[in-house]
Amino acid sequence: CEEARERLLAQAKKPAITRDGRKVIVRANLELLDEIPLALDFGADGVGLFRTEYLYVTRKTIPNEEELFANYRQVVESLYPNIVTFRTLDLGGDKFAEELDLPEEINPALGLRAIRLCLKNPALFRIQLRAILRACAYGNVRIMFPLVSGIEELREAKKFLQEVFEELRQEGLDIEFPPCGAMIEIPTAVFIADHLAKEVDFFSIGTNDLIQYALAIDRGNEQVAHLYEPLHPGILRMVHYILEAGHRAGIHVAMCGEMAGELLYLPLLVGFGFDELSMNPQSIPAIKDYICALSFEECRSLCEEILQFASAEEVRNHLEAWLEKKGLLP
Amino acid sequence: CEEARERLLAQAKKPAITRDGRKVIVRANLELLDEIPLALDFGADGVGLFRTEYLYVTRKTIPNEEELFANYRQVVESLYPNIVTFRTLDLGGDKFAEELDLPEEINPALGLRAIRLCLKNPALFRIQLRAILRACAYGNVRIMFPLVSGIEELREAKKFLQEVFEELRQEGLDIEFPPCGAMIEIPTAVFIADHLAKEVDFFSIGTNDLIQYALAIDRGNEQVAHLYEPLHPGILRMVHYILEAGHRAGIHVAMCGEMAGELLYLPLLVGFGFDELSMNPQSIPAIKDYICALSFEECRSLCEEILQFASAEEVRNHLEAWLEKKGLLP
Ligand SMILES: [Mg+2]
Ligand SMILES: [Mg+2]
Repeated sequence: CEEARERLLAQAKKPAITRDGRKVIVRANLELLDEIPLALDFGADGVGLFRTEYLYVTRKTIPNEEELFANYRQVVESLYPNIVTFRTLDLGGDKFAEELDLPEEINPALGLRAIRLCLKNPALFRIQLRAILRACAYGNVRIMFPLVSGIEELREAKKFLQEVFEELRQEGLDIEFPPCGAMIEIPTAVFIADHLAKEVDFFSIGTNDLIQYALAIDRGNEQVAHLYEPLHPGILRMVHYILEAGHRAGIHVAMCGEMAGELLYLPLLVGFGFDELSMNPQSIPAIKDYICALSFEECRSLCEEILQFASAEEVRNHLEAWLEKKGLLP
Repeated sequence: CEEARERLLAQAKKPAITRDGRKVIVRANLELLDEIPLALDFGADGVGLFRTEYLYVTRKTIPNEEELFANYRQVVESLYPNIVTFRTLDLGGDKFAEELDLPEEINPALGLRAIRLCLKNPALFRIQLRAILRACAYGNVRIMFPLVSGIEELREAKKFLQEVFEELRQEGLDIEFPPCGAMIEIPTAVFIADHLAKEVDFFSIGTNDLIQYALAIDRGNEQVAHLYEPLHPGILRMVHYILEAGHRAGIHVAMCGEMAGELLYLPLLVGFGFDELSMNPQSIPAIKDYICALSFEECRSLCEEILQFASAEEVRNHLEAWLEKKGLLP
């Protein structure tokens, strides 16, 4: 058993490639510097989601540019030459910074959070963007904006980034403009994914929020927890729709919600054609191992069948029967 | 001016038919018995949404079956032979019944409300369904379930209705099973509208909630009010998608949110092919008049163009230019 674990960890250092030769990049979701060695040890192909709220929610004052830069630089350097994907501030909802002193909201999950909050607080946003761009000089960085609901928001966020980039170039910083992505986690963004895809270098689907909004359920509320269902045909069709739109536009599509780290869903995610999956580091070895046991073409056929079902129960039954037949039940 | 108003009111009593002969049923959203004469006076072709929460939120105790029946019967009789569409209880969110004593929720809009609440409280639900079905004997009734997110919920709600129907038949009540509809106001319901359409006789799009969930904004929260936008291309594509699914299945599709009562949006709603629009009674005469000035085929072409746009601003500009060219700016 110890031996099996060793083999899994050793294999996790290699790329995950399906039996028929399709590579799926498997990255880590991280929040802290301390987690980086572990993530690399578990075979992370870089970081698909670096959460940047920690320095804001654990202290009384907003961190300044130098503090952020020092932190981001260390992250980027520790992971070099792997990619780090910084998600810009996702405060609000259930994460608060004391100094910001935001008004209380009746439905905070439907309120001023993430990119909305940043666009309303240009100083807050610029300081973070400056720190991320400065860290670009030390490794491979991507930036993604959370909770994009429309093209105007995305363009506005990109404009901030462009302005800060020009500013830093004038100050003498020698960096390239980093790849820039939109998180798809709001239903309207799904429906205009074709338009959004033209504005960015990649998509990353945040399934936790997407499922929450698409089903109109607070995932922290046990009264409606029974409705939280990644296999809801509506959710699967949304995911499929985003992938089609992204790939038609020639961009990479990633998933970085909890759904990405579940073995049971993996044949569907592979079949839909995800280029990247990002998850808790601990899940990476088993996910990479499982990808190597799958056939992309078989998973694709499975997805075609599954997209026709009306209920999550039918999806689950069909998926489990398929896995059992293939001897792949997790 | 008084004369113009008289003409408008007289014309409102007739069906609304576009210049090229397409009829659009225009109904009233009502809550109280007292509003019925006004609605009929304004030319309502029946009631597209009768809200049933009033008797629950205005008193300390839950009303019993007899009280509900007496109320519903009066509603149905006063409107006869027009259709009344009862929405089953839409409590929770921002409407509470004291006796139910529901737990507080951090995001009540994403919590235990509407059909979810009824399915968890069978006694509450059955009493209302009994009262509505008993009222069927006195006129033309339809029933619709609010906040349907998936096929299981819809089937479960219909099962309750079927059981209560059988029960009442055994007690000797001689009624037909009423037409039964699903409100489409949750994003996952949009994406499985083809499946849902096979289970019901009609759809009614509740745009207030649909827009709120699809954009992930609390429409009561002024911090994010700037994002509330019925002309968001994602919203328009959702609406279009629902209509296509409904019509492919051969069922009527209605809209009963505030969006349905706005002149500016009307060419789009007519062009998308709505069979019914339901709104505040006061809006009916002007809406009916405006429908008569439109051409369905022209509105359809407009919709085809508009569905290609990436931003609400482009949609609005194109729509306004189109209206101006046709001399139809409201
Ligand atoms: Mg999120
Ligand atoms: Mg509603």
